[in-house]
Amino acid sequence: MKQEYNDTMLCDYYELTMANGYYKNGWKDKITYFDVFFRSIPDHGGFAIAAGLEQVIHYIENLSFDEEDIAFLRGKGIFDEEFLSYLKDFSFHGDIWAIPEGTPIFPNEPIMTVRAPAPEAQFIETFVLLTLNHQSLIATKANRICRAAEGRPVTEFGSRRAQGRDGAINGARAACIGGCVGTACTIAEQLYGTPAGGTMAHSWVQMFDSEIEAFRAYCESYPKNPCLLVDTYNVLKSGIPNAIKVFKEFNIEDCAIRIDSGDITYLTKKARRMLDEAGYGNCRIVISNSLDEYIITDLLRQGARIDSFGVGERLITSKSDPVFGGVYKLCAIEDEEGNVIPKIKVSENTGKITTPHYKKVWRIFDRDSGMARADLITVFDEVIDPSKPLTIFDPEHPWKKLTLDNYKIKELQVPVFKNGRCVLEHRPDVNEIRDYSKAQIDLLWDEMKRFEHPHLYYVDLSQKLWDVKQKLIAENVNAGVDE
Amino acid sequence: MKQEYNDTMLCDYYELTMANGYYKNGWKDKITYFDVFFRSIPDHGGFAIAAGLEQVIHYIENLSFDEEDIAFLRGKGIFDEEFLSYLKDFSFHGDIWAIPEGTPIFPNEPIMTVRAPAPEAQFIETFVLLTLNHQSLIATKANRICRAAEGRPVTEFGSRRAQGRDGAINGARAACIGGCVGTACTIAEQLYGTPAGGTMAHSWVQMFDSEIEAFRAYCESYPKNPCLLVDTYNVLKSGIPNAIKVFKEFNIEDCAIRIDSGDITYLTKKARRMLDEAGYGNCRIVISNSLDEYIITDLLRQGARIDSFGVGERLITSKSDPVFGGVYKLCAIEDEEGNVIPKIKVSENTGKITTPHYKKVWRIFDRDSGMARADLITVFDEVIDPSKPLTIFDPEHPWKKLTLDNYKIKELQVPVFKNGRCVLEHRPDVNEIRDYSKAQIDLLWDEMKRFEHPHLYYVDLSQKLWDVKQKLIAENVNAGVDE
Repeated sequence: MKQEYNDTMLCDYYELTMANGYYKNGWKDKITYFDVFFRSIPDHGGFAIAAGLEQVIHYIENLSFDEEDIAFLRGKGIFDEEFLSYLKDFSFHGDIWAIPEGTPIFPNEPIMTVRAPAPEAQFIETFVLLTLNHQSLIATKANRICRAAEGRPVTEFGSRRAQGRDGAINGARAACIGGCVGTACTIAEQLYGTPAGGTMAHSWVQMFDSEIEAFRAYCESYPKNPCLLVDTYNVLKSGIPNAIKVFKEFNIEDCAIRIDSGDITYLTKKARRMLDEAGYGNCRIVISNSLDEYIITDLLRQGARIDSFGVGERLITSKSDPVFGGVYKLCAIEDEEGNVIPKIKVSENTGKITTPHYKKVWRIFDRDSGMARADLITVFDEVIDPSKPLTIFDPEHPWKKLTLDNYKIKELQVPVFKNGRCVLEHRPDVNEIRDYSKAQIDLLWDEMKRFEHPHLYYVDLSQKLWDVKQKLIAENVNAGVDE
Repeated sequence: MKQEYNDTMLCDYYELTMANGYYKNGWKDKITYFDVFFRSIPDHGGFAIAAGLEQVIHYIENLSFDEEDIAFLRGKGIFDEEFLSYLKDFSFHGDIWAIPEGTPIFPNEPIMTVRAPAPEAQFIETFVLLTLNHQSLIATKANRICRAAEGRPVTEFGSRRAQGRDGAINGARAACIGGCVGTACTIAEQLYGTPAGGTMAHSWVQMFDSEIEAFRAYCESYPKNPCLLVDTYNVLKSGIPNAIKVFKEFNIEDCAIRIDSGDITYLTKKARRMLDEAGYGNCRIVISNSLDEYIITDLLRQGARIDSFGVGERLITSKSDPVFGGVYKLCAIEDEEGNVIPKIKVSENTGKITTPHYKKVWRIFDRDSGMARADLITVFDEVIDPSKPLTIFDPEHPWKKLTLDNYKIKELQVPVFKNGRCVLEHRPDVNEIRDYSKAQIDLLWDEMKRFEHPHLYYVDLSQKLWDVKQKLIAENVNAGVDE
């Protein structure tokens, strides 16, 4: 399963033209701050789930341009030789803080903050976004689907409909972070320890002269917990009766059937009764066929008898909302004395105005219930004293205020790189991330977990940060005019 | 740009359980036929575009399980040692026919046909589908967007929102097959020759003390055809005036501006006038910001003055319909005498019933106009004599008949593998595929190119094939019952 690649050249071309420009401008070592944040939650959900950090770390640690890359860039005819020499020894020397994978995250808060020399910080934009956007999208979608399944196991089945090999492999990883118990994707288990499983396709049944022969051959090969696909011909008239016959012939007690078409509510109710009456009350019923959180909710509401779900294309592509819109924006630079100078991007679309400055993001929990109350974004040097009441306000509607008492706070970002070296002491595996994620989601109110019109969690700015933002908006809204 | 990986283990786990089962059943050399086909066109379009074959060839040629893979599978505890030994020398020995990349394709016709020993034909399912589905999806979407742009160049800008690295890299490849003139994805040019371009982000402008200084620095570095991003502060009050000033200062005539936010119709009309009045009638106006075929159509309908488009997330994920539902279905086996025995999959969802048999697919063109009239699927050994009238009929409504005269026919699938070796004499590059695709699309009537309710092209079955299908449906609809 050789998997060696260098993703250094997987970048938007303008990262290189800008890096070259910064370099020429004497900014090789100029310190810049960039935030990764997103503006809206896929599917209008109540929260998203951070994922993909591990692959970002791998990318940063392996950044390097080889001779072939340099020759390619030289051939484009616009890069300076000095810059190309600089790229030969290019690596990342900066600091990165990030919210750990599995954490519930919200719009407009910095998921990751990069502090690094301008060409380095700029250059990594494309891959950082690509990775965090993809995996956060799938983890968020998988979590919705798992919530709809109400404790029933959900397995990720979508490789064949994924958008490319990474869509399948890292998609399976993200799906497990979001709550899936396993995947059909074999290599994902090899790489990430996400258990791979699966039994048979319709082709298996078609290969034999009859369905019952196909089932017999399967149970002979796999007597341990077989799952028979019962809808190749007719679920109730042939699939289930043949499955029962074969389970009996082989004395198999731990078993399952899978239905991949037809009216699932009707078929599973009938199938359940047939299995129970035959003494197979513990035979599990597995369902697949273009499922998502909406269809699963509806099936269960109608009393479909389902023990577990295999979910494919609508999970692995997040079909109903397939884009996680994370962005990477300059929020500050340092002057020659090391002072942090906040930077803003104003925009004619007010939703695209950025929050300036090097920031910290805090989650505030109720001390009694332990539940999350709000996130607060502050300037990097602000101190919150949890022994004192804290008044927060809606940054869009500042007259909406809330005073919190009896709370505790947690800084959400943790240091990931310091001076170019990864300082993350523990690199959790997928199963650990899933457990952590579940525990964190348990600290969110149920009102935030609705699929339709969930409660919108507060993500507020400190007074100091809000003031900086208003000042910069006023200064910049007509910047450049009449210069 | 080291890019070495072996995708052999990128398979649904059930491919392995089934392959093991076929092997145990004595079917190591049993010849099977599988078709790849899809059931509906994304976005309810009039046609899709085949893409991804080149990556399938690479995959098939490089199939191999290494020691690590075998050890991993042994650890799963369900595979026979004999089968694991067989995997050590596993490779593909079969034949593959496929419709060339860039060809317009339609539902229910075999895009690819695989004839191979059962374990081999079964095993490759996941990767073949993953690759053809992904690239055909993006090529199809890109073509819609390029058609909306009505001849204006479209560049693919979506790496940061792609679903994983392949989503970006092979997505860029597919986008160029679909008609994009280039991409922002640097490595895609290295790998596939799809021209990579791009200039600056908002961060470039923010890095400088003022917009005009940012523009000056950029034009100093890149005086050849610079594209200045003019919406960091205020497009009309600052961005365009500053751009004009700097183009004049640097005596730049070949130039462009990019607008990434705001009301594009309004802004581009105003910008066009300002540029024209300043003597920059040839300054191109480039637009980005969540574009797709619907928004582009609407902008152009309103008279927006746009010279080219950068299209990101909605192209690279095919946002409005992000799944290409290609499937891989057993359609025949060979008996011990080499006779082809057709196989069918019946289903309670009638749309999921397969067309059995080893088949050929033909495109019928009007001899005078050269335009495509219909596709016809026949049994593999049927001969069509174009000197005689040909009556075709709708397979769902067989009383709807059409008799064609003065036509010519072309077999759509070409041999790709013969006895496990690639026999494709010419492996076209992306630019060649795009040109071929454009020429083929020109042979489709405009009525098929509408975005809404396009004319549905005929894909018919020959009488012989239709008869086989009806016979097998009748035989199989109650197969397995009362066995």
